[in-house]
Amino acid sequence: MTAAMMTPGKTAGQVRLAGRPRSSACRQAILRAAYELLSESGLRNFTIEGVAARSGVARSTIYRWWPTKGALAIEGFLEATASHITFPHTSSAKADLKVQMRLVAKMLRGGAGRILCGIIAEGQSDPETIAAFAVGYLTPRRRECAAILRRGIDNREFRADLDIPTVQSALYSPLHLRLLLREPIDDPWVENLAETVLRGCLAGD
Amino acid sequence: MTAAMMTPGKTAGQVRLAGRPRSSACRQAILRAAYELLSESGLRNFTIEGVAARSGVARSTIYRWWPTKGALAIEGFLEATASHITFPHTSSAKADLKVQMRLVAKMLRGGAGRILCGIIAEGQSDPETIAAFAVGYLTPRRRECAAILRRGIDNREFRADLDIPTVQSALYSPLHLRLLLREPIDDPWVENLAETVLRGCLAGD
Repeated sequence: MTAAMMTPGKTAGQVRLAGRPRSSACRQAILRAAYELLSESGLRNFTIEGVAARSGVARSTIYRWWPTKGALAIEGFLEATASHITFPHTSSAKADLKVQMRLVAKMLRGGAGRILCGIIAEGQSDPETIAAFAVGYLTPRRRECAAILRRGIDNREFRADLDIPTVQSALYSPLHLRLLLREPIDDPWVENLAETVLRGCLAGD
Repeated sequence: MTAAMMTPGKTAGQVRLAGRPRSSACRQAILRAAYELLSESGLRNFTIEGVAARSGVARSTIYRWWPTKGALAIEGFLEATASHITFPHTSSAKADLKVQMRLVAKMLRGGAGRILCGIIAEGQSDPETIAAFAVGYLTPRRRECAAILRRGIDNREFRADLDIPTVQSALYSPLHLRLLLREPIDDPWVENLAETVLRGCLAGD
């Protein structure tokens, strides 16, 4: 952020980037502030004003990039959690799915899980938040999970007639629902779930 | 409700039943009012005061029977939906599970589904609501589903080493999560989910 980017009349630290592409440092500052505020007090108390104050970036700039608090919350959440949900690629699709599920479970057990619950809760009275969550979180995760399942079909580990979206739901919905119901998501339970669902997916049974 | 049950100083229609067992008519009036209010404006705007006004039963009476709005909302929800989730008993446990899942899906697609989403959403900032939901809704439903799965094991339809709570999660969590994410829960999808999960549960594979 340079002095030339400051808008006259704004308090020190408030920055405006009219028409520019997103500055990486500025974007990081906004998303970091968003994640911190979500961790501290949840989505219900989350505001773009609060992110502006915490990050030192002008409210109008934040609104230009993220038109709703839901969109900003979801991107802050994803930015902070992406490293926990990068998925493995070995020769066994079944083993990769189990690693993937354990990584997602670990992420859900942490602060990110409580933010995710807040996003789903808020989404019950705000369809745009659910839509932003679907685009930002669900769709890319589902795509990565589907790629592993398709690899398993190509490997002949899994049945060729597998219904990929249904298997994904059976593998991942229980993790998310248990989180919402405040039930534990420990690794032995995740292992059990994976074995139970994937048993019906194996080729040659 | 008789004139003898009226408390002096209360407005017409407000009734007090100190120390009595729950009057069935009065209880029905409260639960019907609770369900109507939940259907009209969701749990977030739901109050015991509103139920008192709608039902004509004194607030203090309602509080004596249901100490929190969460407890009342869940009982109102269950009272109105119980008939949709009475489960079948035939000679095929797999067929019974599919009927059960279709009945639950039908209930979730209706107004009761939106109330259930409101209860889960409210529960994210109120652990007592989640606890009341677990006791009032989840535990009895899980017990009934477990009974069918155990019958399937006894019939030798299902594997003897089935992990019943895990199978239940894989069968039912996707329905509830799709509801929360505003994704459709149609019968062909439910059939597909049941086939996908139960395929791994069958004996002799």
